[in-house]
Amino acid sequence: MIPRLVRTPKRADSRVTKKIDEETVRFCALGGLEEIGRNMMFFEYRDEILVIDAGLQFPAQETPGIDYIIPNTEYLEGKKGNIKGIIITHAHYDHIGAIPHILEKLGNPPIYTTILTKEVIMRRQEDYRNSPKPIFVIVKGGETHKFGQYFSVSFFDVFHNVPDGIGSVIHTPIGNILHPGEFKFNYDNDGKPKNLDIWKKVGEGGVHTLLLDSTGAETPGFSVSERIVEAELEKTFRAAKGRILVGTFASLLDRLGEIIKIAEKLGRKVAISGLSMKTNMQIVQNLGYLKFEKGTIIPLEDIGKYHDEKLLILCTGAQGESKGSLMRIANGEHKQIRARPGDTIILSSSVIPGNEMSVQNLKDNLARQGAIIYHYKMLDIHSSGHAAQEELKMVMTLTKPRFFIPIHGYYFMRQRNAKLAEEVLGLKPEEIILSDNGLVIEMNKNSVRITNEQLPAYYVMVDGLGVGDVGEIVLRDRLTLSQEGMLVIIATVSKQGGKMLKNPDIISRGFIYLKENQELLDEIRRKIRGIIGRIPHGHHQSLDADYIKTLIRDQIGQFLYTKTKRRPMVLPVVIEV
Amino acid sequence: MIPRLVRTPKRADSRVTKKIDEETVRFCALGGLEEIGRNMMFFEYRDEILVIDAGLQFPAQETPGIDYIIPNTEYLEGKKGNIKGIIITHAHYDHIGAIPHILEKLGNPPIYTTILTKEVIMRRQEDYRNSPKPIFVIVKGGETHKFGQYFSVSFFDVFHNVPDGIGSVIHTPIGNILHPGEFKFNYDNDGKPKNLDIWKKVGEGGVHTLLLDSTGAETPGFSVSERIVEAELEKTFRAAKGRILVGTFASLLDRLGEIIKIAEKLGRKVAISGLSMKTNMQIVQNLGYLKFEKGTIIPLEDIGKYHDEKLLILCTGAQGESKGSLMRIANGEHKQIRARPGDTIILSSSVIPGNEMSVQNLKDNLARQGAIIYHYKMLDIHSSGHAAQEELKMVMTLTKPRFFIPIHGYYFMRQRNAKLAEEVLGLKPEEIILSDNGLVIEMNKNSVRITNEQLPAYYVMVDGLGVGDVGEIVLRDRLTLSQEGMLVIIATVSKQGGKMLKNPDIISRGFIYLKENQELLDEIRRKIRGIIGRIPHGHHQSLDADYIKTLIRDQIGQFLYTKTKRRPMVLPVVIEV
Repeated sequence: MIPRLVRTPKRADSRVTKKIDEETVRFCALGGLEEIGRNMMFFEYRDEILVIDAGLQFPAQETPGIDYIIPNTEYLEGKKGNIKGIIITHAHYDHIGAIPHILEKLGNPPIYTTILTKEVIMRRQEDYRNSPKPIFVIVKGGETHKFGQYFSVSFFDVFHNVPDGIGSVIHTPIGNILHPGEFKFNYDNDGKPKNLDIWKKVGEGGVHTLLLDSTGAETPGFSVSERIVEAELEKTFRAAKGRILVGTFASLLDRLGEIIKIAEKLGRKVAISGLSMKTNMQIVQNLGYLKFEKGTIIPLEDIGKYHDEKLLILCTGAQGESKGSLMRIANGEHKQIRARPGDTIILSSSVIPGNEMSVQNLKDNLARQGAIIYHYKMLDIHSSGHAAQEELKMVMTLTKPRFFIPIHGYYFMRQRNAKLAEEVLGLKPEEIILSDNGLVIEMNKNSVRITNEQLPAYYVMVDGLGVGDVGEIVLRDRLTLSQEGMLVIIATVSKQGGKMLKNPDIISRGFIYLKENQELLDEIRRKIRGIIGRIPHGHHQSLDADYIKTLIRDQIGQFLYTKTKRRPMVLPVVIEV
Repeated sequence: MIPRLVRTPKRADSRVTKKIDEETVRFCALGGLEEIGRNMMFFEYRDEILVIDAGLQFPAQETPGIDYIIPNTEYLEGKKGNIKGIIITHAHYDHIGAIPHILEKLGNPPIYTTILTKEVIMRRQEDYRNSPKPIFVIVKGGETHKFGQYFSVSFFDVFHNVPDGIGSVIHTPIGNILHPGEFKFNYDNDGKPKNLDIWKKVGEGGVHTLLLDSTGAETPGFSVSERIVEAELEKTFRAAKGRILVGTFASLLDRLGEIIKIAEKLGRKVAISGLSMKTNMQIVQNLGYLKFEKGTIIPLEDIGKYHDEKLLILCTGAQGESKGSLMRIANGEHKQIRARPGDTIILSSSVIPGNEMSVQNLKDNLARQGAIIYHYKMLDIHSSGHAAQEELKMVMTLTKPRFFIPIHGYYFMRQRNAKLAEEVLGLKPEEIILSDNGLVIEMNKNSVRITNEQLPAYYVMVDGLGVGDVGEIVLRDRLTLSQEGMLVIIATVSKQGGKMLKNPDIISRGFIYLKENQELLDEIRRKIRGIIGRIPHGHHQSLDADYIKTLIRDQIGQFLYTKTKRRPMVLPVVIEV
């Protein structure tokens, strides 16, 4: 079965570009509406543009071999002189990952973000030497910044699972647009949500349209409090008799901080395995966001110097990534660490859809080596970073928007979010916009409507050094090759007369192991000789190579299907000598 | 990233085959211990063999293009004269799916199973005309059947999500081995488990070893009662204003029966979309296992004759399978059904790991057409067919085995099951066996031990008409092709002298779209001419084609990696004329 391919590229249709209503703010999401990831959107008013986020999307079954996917910025490139700035809401790759690839194309506009996010962006820029040096404007919650003549943005702090997330109230000529970014509630020790007054204040300023993350919209209730996660982790740590290995996302900086704090409390040293995690921890420590006692964090090389019960090792690879620390440990390929009986291994992250089998393999391989394993389905040792239904509803109630656009997530999730808005705010269908990537939305003082204008929003794929050079055809070929394999048939014929000069050469990969199927190989050769032999030719007639190729492709394809019920890609080559 | 490949084939090592202890029952699982699926195991005593199940395993990411995987029966084929019978525990494909492929190889031994399972097996045989006509012995709970001199089996009824499941007490010279097959508890209206006395009686007969399904061993508590599922479905059906479409597995025959009963109660007609579901429903109706009022089930062609609120349509494809009914409805390709606003669509099945993205697509596409969708995460509208932890524990307590072998499921699941046995039965480590596929276990009167003997248990892949002709090399090629694509380079050179006779031909698929990368193509050609030009040759020296191929493969491979950071498969062909 070949999975659904990416959509047919749609180009901006110049016929639908019309004179922009002077009192209209145009809004468009270039990514993030039909997936989780690739978040990027912009607001346009007259000749000014404000962009929010520039993230990547991780590849899936339908995009094999791809490193990742970035948003299509074709429309913005054509108007790069108008871009007044890019706001980056937080430091996760689905919000910052496209930056090195698009910065130059957009004329290197200033990036407005918080200090931690800046540091993470800069660390990544080191890998992309050809990308221009970014220009940053550091913002803080409580500040208001002007973008050109028409836009200004009041920032406010939000709580997410990476520090320094920021929400935006975008003041525009048609009203305030609220974009909180990604967040969840932070709870005090009594389980009460903190800082609700920030949301109330935003609401009091008047909200024209609320753009709200939908990632958690299918989850009933409230997100699990990090306090509960902490308590559960501490309980599990206390029960561990040997070493503790904790696998989680390198980007879950708050969680990493919590884990180290508990380790300190229990007198365990902490070593970090995994470059991305190490780098991130350095950043937060340098910024003073996390403070530990001196000597708590030890080099990985030194773990041999401590007793097992005095050690905790933070590891990347909880998703079963082949290069992650945990996978290397599981496969016995890690330089410093071997799993062994007595180890307690805790996977403190949810499983990203598509990774289930890799995580199953990881758990199996570690369990076979005698480790005791805990994962998030067994204990409350993970919490999502995204507001769940009750939190989303509270934000709606506190901010009272007139219009609602659910963003971030699959259609089904955004539909759930829309349903919540209908229930909580009593909004009418025309006041809720379920859009798609690339569709332009026109916002006026008293209405928000989806237009027919479709900006280019098809996948831009990053594969090795190539950006955008892997398209639909290459992907489709990869999928076909992976399902059925291929067969190259080389017929060497005389230029004049079209006689076969030698036995056809056949190369096959991924179809059938030809060395063990000599009989089939002989039959194919016979067929080819038959096909070419039957073509009428005179000595002075020149060859129609395309005709021969079509015959071979069709007839050998059909023959192979009859023999094997498989349809390998048949690639005929006619060499005329 | 290339997923972990299948294990290197291990052949039975003749050196470890030793004289069989006359008082030893040998036990081996050929599949089902390192996966969910491909269940097949056997018991051997002196010159007699008893087999249980012959199932298939569905393909995964690491086996692209494969139809399915069946157990390796090499060992049994060599002793086919000894096989006294195959017990089939129930009618699911992971227990019956290999039958048409192995029956002849095993000498067509009699199949002992229940009437419904027989019918499902026979229906499948119709697709495999070359498979011999099976010989059946129909068994019922309460009966005891003799297999050869040494084995006899007392069967008992178990409750699963397909009717007519059967458990086995295998009486052997070393004691009774209990193999309940797959089951869960059935609850009465007060929530009390029914038929516990069957288990108690089995226990009273004495159990040497218990072989217990581990699929539900990670699930705490009891499985959700089908009574609760029924009540929840009825509530959802009652709330539906338009048509109801229910997607579930075609093999969940009990569930299908429940749904039709509720539809009858609410005055809705039932149509069935999907061949496998229709076939299965015919079988159970013919056998009288399910009885409905006349006229409840209507032909799918007739749905136009009824009002929406009088209709319920049962559909296949709840896993997002490309050919399933629901996917065809979602894509607008279904002959009779279009999704539309007012439809209530209920996905009454869990999502099999690996299908998450397909199911997400399915939900999105249906939601976009205005249907209201419910899935099992939102409501209790699905229950697993497998006993959960508390049920497993109760079976252990009631049957009091002396030895315990967890079967069916990944290592991690079987380890959880082993842990339960340790807790409940107080078994010592040496009384619990965590085995692997192909490993031989020796059972004696007072001990059960795992040996070093490894029978062939590597994957046998079914792909189109081929059984076992797709091996590790073909799969590895498919994976490589899917990640990086390939490049065929054809150099036509003179036999004597080794001069290039024409510009090299280059074909590429899945790597880069060459038509749009003429420059790279020219560079590759230049490189090839350089490589061949530098080979010293005289007029009478014959060509070393392998040497040229190696040069091309290495140097072009390196060149492409430097240029693109990708490693397509480079396949050089040298045509000597």
